[in-house]
Amino acid sequence: MSLTLGELAGQIRGDLQQGDPDCLICAVATLQNAQSGDISFLANPGYKKYLLATRASAVILRQADAADCPTAVIVSSNPYASYARAAALIVPAARTRQGVHPTAVLDADCAVDEKAWVGPNCIVEKGAVVHAGVQLAGGCFVGAGSVIGADSRLSANVVICHDVSIGARVNIAPGAVIGSDGFGLANEDGRWLNVPQLGSVRIGDDVEIGSNTTIDRGALDDTVLEEGVRLDNQIQVAHNVHIGAHTAIAGCVGISGSAKIGKHCMIGGGSGIVGHLEIADRVVITGMTMVTKSITSAGVYSSGVPAQENDAWNKTYARMRQLDKLARRIGKLERAQAADKKNDNE
Amino acid sequence: MSLTLGELAGQIRGDLQQGDPDCLICAVATLQNAQSGDISFLANPGYKKYLLATRASAVILRQADAADCPTAVIVSSNPYASYARAAALIVPAARTRQGVHPTAVLDADCAVDEKAWVGPNCIVEKGAVVHAGVQLAGGCFVGAGSVIGADSRLSANVVICHDVSIGARVNIAPGAVIGSDGFGLANEDGRWLNVPQLGSVRIGDDVEIGSNTTIDRGALDDTVLEEGVRLDNQIQVAHNVHIGAHTAIAGCVGISGSAKIGKHCMIGGGSGIVGHLEIADRVVITGMTMVTKSITSAGVYSSGVPAQENDAWNKTYARMRQLDKLARRIGKLERAQAADKKNDNE
Amino acid sequence: MSLTLGELAGQIRGDLQQGDPDCLICAVATLQNAQSGDISFLANPGYKKYLLATRASAVILRQADAADCPTAVIVSSNPYASYARAAALIVPAARTRQGVHPTAVLDADCAVDEKAWVGPNCIVEKGAVVHAGVQLAGGCFVGAGSVIGADSRLSANVVICHDVSIGARVNIAPGAVIGSDGFGLANEDGRWLNVPQLGSVRIGDDVEIGSNTTIDRGALDDTVLEEGVRLDNQIQVAHNVHIGAHTAIAGCVGISGSAKIGKHCMIGGGSGIVGHLEIADRVVITGMTMVTKSITSAGVYSSGVPAQENDAWNKTYARMRQLDKLARRIGKLERAQAADKKNDNE
Repeated sequence: MSLTLGELAGQIRGDLQQGDPDCLICAVATLQNAQSGDISFLANPGYKKYLLATRASAVILRQADAADCPTAVIVSSNPYASYARAAALIVPAARTRQGVHPTAVLDADCAVDEKAWVGPNCIVEKGAVVHAGVQLAGGCFVGAGSVIGADSRLSANVVICHDVSIGARVNIAPGAVIGSDGFGLANEDGRWLNVPQLGSVRIGDDVEIGSNTTIDRGALDDTVLEEGVRLDNQIQVAHNVHIGAHTAIAGCVGISGSAKIGKHCMIGGGSGIVGHLEIADRVVITGMTMVTKSITSAGVYSSGVPAQENDAWNKTYARMRQLDKLARRIGKLERAQAADKKNDNE
Repeated sequence: MSLTLGELAGQIRGDLQQGDPDCLICAVATLQNAQSGDISFLANPGYKKYLLATRASAVILRQADAADCPTAVIVSSNPYASYARAAALIVPAARTRQGVHPTAVLDADCAVDEKAWVGPNCIVEKGAVVHAGVQLAGGCFVGAGSVIGADSRLSANVVICHDVSIGARVNIAPGAVIGSDGFGLANEDGRWLNVPQLGSVRIGDDVEIGSNTTIDRGALDDTVLEEGVRLDNQIQVAHNVHIGAHTAIAGCVGISGSAKIGKHCMIGGGSGIVGHLEIADRVVITGMTMVTKSITSAGVYSSGVPAQENDAWNKTYARMRQLDKLARRIGKLERAQAADKKNDNE
Repeated sequence: MSLTLGELAGQIRGDLQQGDPDCLICAVATLQNAQSGDISFLANPGYKKYLLATRASAVILRQADAADCPTAVIVSSNPYASYARAAALIVPAARTRQGVHPTAVLDADCAVDEKAWVGPNCIVEKGAVVHAGVQLAGGCFVGAGSVIGADSRLSANVVICHDVSIGARVNIAPGAVIGSDGFGLANEDGRWLNVPQLGSVRIGDDVEIGSNTTIDRGALDDTVLEEGVRLDNQIQVAHNVHIGAHTAIAGCVGISGSAKIGKHCMIGGGSGIVGHLEIADRVVITGMTMVTKSITSAGVYSSGVPAQENDAWNKTYARMRQLDKLARRIGKLERAQAADKKNDNE
């Protein structure tokens, strides 16, 4: 959809400071690849080098960058968010369909709203409820008794197990699995007994779940994702985890059972969270960190080890193994020096 | 199913020490959420704080906790296992169906037992054998020549590639892939040649495999999981790995090719096992550990680095990079001190 | 297919130095399990112990190992590559079918070549193009506008989202997802706005993609895998990543957004690559390494921490947390010693 710069600025919390408010914007693009009719943005300072040569018709940026911009300028205190709003306005929304594809398999005793779409080869089991506006792409499985809230979108081959509750406007990417049994094992005489997993999963409104991410059902109580949570691809959420509202978690994170994560947290890719602990609100965990204890106050926490050249790393690691001995040698040196001093003073 | 406390105690290796043996138990619940008619359990000492106020009708616990329990008490030396048995008795088992859904696609030359269930949109290829009691939920793929042992359950969208052998009573969670080609590559003049992956996968009886876990077929010999193995979600098992009986592996673990893991091991989440090594029986690997060499005796092994506040971690990491130099400085100090001492003595 | 040793040697860049060129080879096997009629190989020196007792009819090996071989010998400077070629010649290639299974769901406006195979329960959406020789196993999803190049093979339950471009002779293992939305989020007043993901994914010729691997579409420009790239299972490739030709990446690696990886790289399992950085050609990253900065020259880079016994590791880790203090104590000792020396000299 085309909008004028003037219309756009008003809808994206921006201030058109430079340029013709009637200039028509038809598309979005990067600073490097934009053409006439495109709007672009500058949020990450690393890309400022592309600003001067951009061929965009307009750029969304911070006040401080406005003077350097050769094109029309929409100033925003949050250019990335303003760009997100602009892109959502300009780019056509995903198609919304209604009805049930003839190859879909619906149990006689499920309830699919007439304003929902159930795509080819989907399966909707007994007692499941699919609300208005829901879009199930091909090959999705909605297990017995599960509820999919209004306007939620499940991409291809998503699996929702039985008795799971999904909020409204939830997007789930292909291959994600919600509500599989938790990893509940009791050891008896060296063999594992399965502990029945009797809880469920409750997903709040406006949650996003990435491709091939897995969220297990609770053992007795439920696994819970509050509203606005964002999960990237290939995240593992174990049974009875609780994730607070508006927390964002990057790819390949693993969260062990019964961990409770606060609201507005950000967790970097590849991190691991041990079970049965609590993480406060507004905690930031950087990439590949292992959280082994509760974190009681907001802040940034880390343990990921950055790469070195292999030769240097081998030396580092060899010394790490000697660390306890090295520390004792320092203590011995200190004691010897203290003794020397004492001797000198006597 | 409802049972009396007296009946239950006898079937879960427990001793009813307190309470009415005729009290009817209808459900299981946590100490915090239990109501009258529920049985609960206390295994993890962290939850003892909930014992006094519980409204459960009975609690399964250790002898040492019995005196503090306000309700009926079943004492067990292994309360979690006794609870698992109780829950399995009280909670109705998953439904078992028979027959073939009309949308399933069966090759004319496959063998599906009449007491098995093949769900909607499943595909069973040529030469595959599905034994009695097997339950294939929707969208499963059973490749040519594969065998699914009696009473095994495949959840939605499970993929079993060709010529794979699955034992009896195996549970496989949604999205798991068994028998895909191993990552076999030979480099020739800078390009990769695929090495044909000609082995298969053999899964023993009573194995559990988590959601989106992947197990590759062997290159020449087979990838093997012995009986009773438990794999959590999103585990990667490379070609020719061998996992011993009753070993349990938590989520997001990666096991490289030809690693041989013993029996009764426990491997923590996010760990990585290098290829072509052996791990003895009864080895415990804690979370996010990297195993680079064979482990020849039972014990606990670790290398996961717990999180610090980011400022502190940055200092830690900066010093790690200096470790070799720091160690040399300690050596120099020691030599200087030894020389001083020698001088003093002369 | 059976070949004589003489025929084989000529086709695998080998030199038949010992044995009857008319000896018929029918199968491939490991040194340990080979029987008469089999050919085996010795590439990894760890397996040389099996050479003397092998019952294979012939072995592919390096010149240096030839004298120790009790059987016919094909000498190769690259025995593993020669073996890969031999196996590809001897073992029948995967079956190639043509046509569309009656349960497949094809949009009226898609183009499937008559020499392609679309398996049971596959879905091909509007505007998609499936070229000659393509093999879609069961349950695959090809989104609107996507193109699958000639002779590519998609295993069961692969998802290709909309407008993705797949080259020729690409193999994609079960459960892989190509072209899901990138994890693009803008924070506004504590809530996350989705940034529309408007780029796509372009996969070059002769690429291999492992089971349950996920590759996100670009935000504005495309995510790109150049020709010959090899991805193992459960790899996460974020939006706008660029992977150079003939790079091989082992399982469970996560690559963050806009990372640019060179050609002919090798990345070990479980590693993580931070976003917005560049890795030069011919870089080797060992397992479980975290790359946080650009790497500008070929070489080997590491940060994975090998396991210790837990007691030793606990000491190591406790000392790591003291490292900054230990370093300061070394500095203090040095200053004290320097002062002593000065005093001695005065």
